[in-house]
Amino acid sequence: MQVAIAQTEPNKQTPQSTEIWEPVPPVVTPGVYSANTAGTTPPSDAIVLFDGKNADNWVANKGYTPSASTSPLQWPVRDGVLYSSTTSSARTKQEFGDMQLHIEFQTPSKVEGNGQGRGNSGIFLQGRYELQVLDNYNNPTYVNGMVGSIYKQAIPLANPSRKPGEWQSYDIIYMAPRFNKAGLMIEPAYVTVLLNGILVQNHVAIRGTTEYIGYPKVQAHGKGPLILQDHGNPVGFRNIWVREL
Amino acid sequence: MQVAIAQTEPNKQTPQSTEIWEPVPPVVTPGVYSANTAGTTPPSDAIVLFDGKNADNWVANKGYTPSASTSPLQWPVRDGVLYSSTTSSARTKQEFGDMQLHIEFQTPSKVEGNGQGRGNSGIFLQGRYELQVLDNYNNPTYVNGMVGSIYKQAIPLANPSRKPGEWQSYDIIYMAPRFNKAGLMIEPAYVTVLLNGILVQNHVAIRGTTEYIGYPKVQAHGKGPLILQDHGNPVGFRNIWVREL
Amino acid sequence: MQVAIAQTEPNKQTPQSTEIWEPVPPVVTPGVYSANTAGTTPPSDAIVLFDGKNADNWVANKGYTPSASTSPLQWPVRDGVLYSSTTSSARTKQEFGDMQLHIEFQTPSKVEGNGQGRGNSGIFLQGRYELQVLDNYNNPTYVNGMVGSIYKQAIPLANPSRKPGEWQSYDIIYMAPRFNKAGLMIEPAYVTVLLNGILVQNHVAIRGTTEYIGYPKVQAHGKGPLILQDHGNPVGFRNIWVREL
Amino acid sequence: MQVAIAQTEPNKQTPQSTEIWEPVPPVVTPGVYSANTAGTTPPSDAIVLFDGKNADNWVANKGYTPSASTSPLQWPVRDGVLYSSTTSSARTKQEFGDMQLHIEFQTPSKVEGNGQGRGNSGIFLQGRYELQVLDNYNNPTYVNGMVGSIYKQAIPLANPSRKPGEWQSYDIIYMAPRFNKAGLMIEPAYVTVLLNGILVQNHVAIRGTTEYIGYPKVQAHGKGPLILQDHGNPVGFRNIWVREL
Repeated sequence: MQVAIAQTEPNKQTPQSTEIWEPVPPVVTPGVYSANTAGTTPPSDAIVLFDGKNADNWVANKGYTPSASTSPLQWPVRDGVLYSSTTSSARTKQEFGDMQLHIEFQTPSKVEGNGQGRGNSGIFLQGRYELQVLDNYNNPTYVNGMVGSIYKQAIPLANPSRKPGEWQSYDIIYMAPRFNKAGLMIEPAYVTVLLNGILVQNHVAIRGTTEYIGYPKVQAHGKGPLILQDHGNPVGFRNIWVREL
Repeated sequence: MQVAIAQTEPNKQTPQSTEIWEPVPPVVTPGVYSANTAGTTPPSDAIVLFDGKNADNWVANKGYTPSASTSPLQWPVRDGVLYSSTTSSARTKQEFGDMQLHIEFQTPSKVEGNGQGRGNSGIFLQGRYELQVLDNYNNPTYVNGMVGSIYKQAIPLANPSRKPGEWQSYDIIYMAPRFNKAGLMIEPAYVTVLLNGILVQNHVAIRGTTEYIGYPKVQAHGKGPLILQDHGNPVGFRNIWVREL
Repeated sequence: MQVAIAQTEPNKQTPQSTEIWEPVPPVVTPGVYSANTAGTTPPSDAIVLFDGKNADNWVANKGYTPSASTSPLQWPVRDGVLYSSTTSSARTKQEFGDMQLHIEFQTPSKVEGNGQGRGNSGIFLQGRYELQVLDNYNNPTYVNGMVGSIYKQAIPLANPSRKPGEWQSYDIIYMAPRFNKAGLMIEPAYVTVLLNGILVQNHVAIRGTTEYIGYPKVQAHGKGPLILQDHGNPVGFRNIWVREL
Repeated sequence: MQVAIAQTEPNKQTPQSTEIWEPVPPVVTPGVYSANTAGTTPPSDAIVLFDGKNADNWVANKGYTPSASTSPLQWPVRDGVLYSSTTSSARTKQEFGDMQLHIEFQTPSKVEGNGQGRGNSGIFLQGRYELQVLDNYNNPTYVNGMVGSIYKQAIPLANPSRKPGEWQSYDIIYMAPRFNKAGLMIEPAYVTVLLNGILVQNHVAIRGTTEYIGYPKVQAHGKGPLILQDHGNPVGFRNIWVREL
C-alpha cells in the first residue's frame, strides 16, 4: 500500500500522527496492596536494584537507549526513594534478558502540567522498549501513551491509576526477543504487565524500539539494562528488583 | 515518553516517517513449485473465491476497508486471471474469521516504476490488515513495505520474490483478534505467511489496522472480507481459496 | 511412534506413569505481601466470588468437572474463610471465559500427610483445567503435581511456598481456548500464574482437560465455572475475585 | 489432584491410557501440488539433507533420541528415494535450532497392517519431539497418534492424507524451546505444520519429549539433529531440506 499522491506531495505529520486516542481503557480503582505499605521485602532470589539506601547499582545515561559513555548518577535518594532528575536518565549497571521485574513509582503529589506533562517517566526494558510511567489519574492523554502502555505500541487494558503521590506498583514479565544472523527478529519480545495488581498488558509482542516519531525499529541486541527516564517531573522509585527467569 | 520540544514546535513528518529501511531481509531464490503450473486444484474443504472463470464472489469496494456501499466489480478476468484495475478495490462477498488462505499473484512482466510504484497491490485480511503485494525483484523499498510484509508493521524474514510476470503464491494462516466489551484488543490477530514456500512471517501479532500515515488503530470487529487492493498496477490473481479453521 | 511389543503385551502403567520428577523448580522465599494482611480489597471492577461473609455464589458439585445436578454447598465459612470439606467440590454459579483471577489459600497449619496427601486442593479453571493447590513447603512431590503446576501438564518455574498455615496468593491470567465446528482446539487456553508474587507459569498452553490417569482430553466448551477441589484436607480460601477481560 | 485410592491400589494402565480417540479431525482431500511432481528444487538458502543421490548427511542412530554412538546408515537409496529399514533410525549429522523444514514421504503402496501398524515412521525434531508419519488413508487410529499429530501431544486439525504410495509433503516451522539455568523450560518449542498444503498444527506448544508411555519429559538441550524413525514399515523419503531461521 502507498497512496500515490504522497510521492509527489508528502503529507505533513507531527509526532501526534502516531498517537491513538481510542478505545479508552476503563478506569479501575485498584485494591489496597502492600505497595502502599512500608516493609515489603523482595523474594529471596531477586537481584535488588534499589533497596532505598543508595543508587550504587545505577549510572547516568544520556537518552533512553544505552549510551556509549556513562557517568555517576546524580539522581537524589531521599527517605528511601530514588527521584528522577533532569541531570540524566538512570541505567542499571547490570544487564538482563528474560526477567520478572518489580518496581514501584510515585508521581508528584503536587499536580502540575497536563497530558504527557504530568508525572511523566518511563521504564526502558533492555534499554529499548518503554513501559510508560505517567500520572493518568483524571488526566487523559492518547491511549497508546498512557501509564501501562508500551509507548506508542500497545494500549493498556485498563487505567488502574492511583492518586498522585500514592505509591503504585508494576509487576512485569518480560521475555527477550530472538534475532537471527541477518539481524531480523524471528521472535519479538513479549511482555505481561500488572499495574497495581490489574492486568494492563497480556503477552504483548513488542515490534521494535520505542520511537517518539515514526515506527518501531528492529535492532538486534543481547542482554540490556533497565533505563529509567527523566522527563522533567520528579518521579520517585522504590523496591526495584529483578528475578532472572 | 515525549520529547518536550515537540509540544511547542512539532517536528514535521511525512509518510516516510513510518518507513523502516533495515535490516534488509536476505534474497532467497524459491524452489520450483506448482504455483507456476496449470492445473493446481484446491483442497476439498476450501471455499473457492476465484477459480479462473468469473469474479462472482467479489464486489467493488471503495478504499481498503469495507465500504458502506458496494457495486459490481469491474476488474477484468482474462485467461483465468483476475486483474486489478483502477475502478475500485475488490472485496469478497463472504466474510471470514480464522482461516487458511491461499492466493497466487503475478506482477506485470513489463517492469515499470520503482520502489512502491512497481507491481503494487495488497491483500487486506478481514478488510483491515494488509499483507503487501509488490514486485520486489531487484527493486528495493522500505523493508516494512516489502512484499511479504504486514504493511508498516512487520518486516518479512526473507525476500523470495520471483521474477516479474512469474506466478507467486501466498499461503497464509490467520487467527482473528479478540476484543472485549470495552472494544480493547485482548488478543491480537496472529499471522503466519509463506511466500513461494518460504517463511516470511512467523506467528506475528498484528497490532491494529494498516495505516499509510501514523500508527495502527484498534477497532473492534467481527468477521471480515478479503479486500484486494488496486494501486494503479495491473496485478493478476488466481487460485484464491480459504479454508475456515 | 509405537513400540511394536506393546501391541502384544501391554506395559503395565499406574497413575505414576504420568508423574514427572525433574527438573525440580528452585525454592524461593517470597516477599511479604498483603496476602498476609487483613483488609485487602478487590479492585472496583471485580466480580467478588467470596468476600468472607458467605458462600452464596457457590454450589456443591460432584467431581471436578461441572456436574449435571448441583445442590447447596456444605463447605463451612468460619472467621471469613471458606474451608473445603469432604461433602463435595465447590463450584461458582457464574461462568467465565477470559479472566484475571485472584484467590488466596491456606493449607492446614497442623501438618499431616506427605506428598500429594498434604494440604491438597485445586482450582479448576472453566471447570476443566486444574491449577494445583498443595502444601509443598519442605514436602517434595512429582514436579508436574506441585503447587503452581497445571496438574500433570506444566511444571512450575519456582516453588515459592509459604509455611503451612500462612496465607498464599494466586494471581492468574487466563485466556479461554478456541474450538472450531469440528470440536477441535484451534487455540489452546493460555495461562500465566503468579504464586505469592512469583512467576510460576508464563503464557503456558493448556492442551486439554486435567486427567489423573492418561492424557489431557480435548472437549469443546464455552464459558465455565470455577471449581474448588476437596481432597480430604481442610484448605481455607479467601479473597476470591475475577475480573472479566 | 490425586484420587486417594490410587495410593493404595494403583490403577493398571497400558500405553493405550495416553491415547485419545476424539474429536476426529475431518478428512480433507488435498490439492494437487508439486510433491507429486519430479523436478522440485529446494530454495537457494536451504541446507539440503537428502537430494536423492546418497545418504551422506545421515548416520545410524539407536532409538529416537540422539544415541551416544553412531555408525554408518544402512538405509537403502533407490531411484532417488531413501527408505527406512529395520537396521536403525536415521539421524542427521548436522544439528538445528529454529528452522523451516521440508520433507516428503511415501508410505508403501502395498497396504499392510492396521492402525499404528500401517506405514508408520516419524520425524523427531531436535531429536526429541515426534511429528508422526503414518498411512492414515482410510485407516483410523487414536487421534493424538495420527499423521500430522505431535505424537501423544497434539491432535492434527485435519486428515489430508494422500493414498498409499503417493508422495506427501510436510512443511514445518519450528522454534526451539528456551531453558533456564535450572533446566526448566521457560518457553516451549512451537511448531506449525502443513501436511500436503493443509494446516494440521498451528503454533502448537510442545510440552516435552515424545513418550510412548507416560508424560512428556522436560530435558534442557541445545541444537539437535533430525531423526527419522524406522517402525518396521519401509517408508520412503525425498526432498529433505532445512532453512535455518
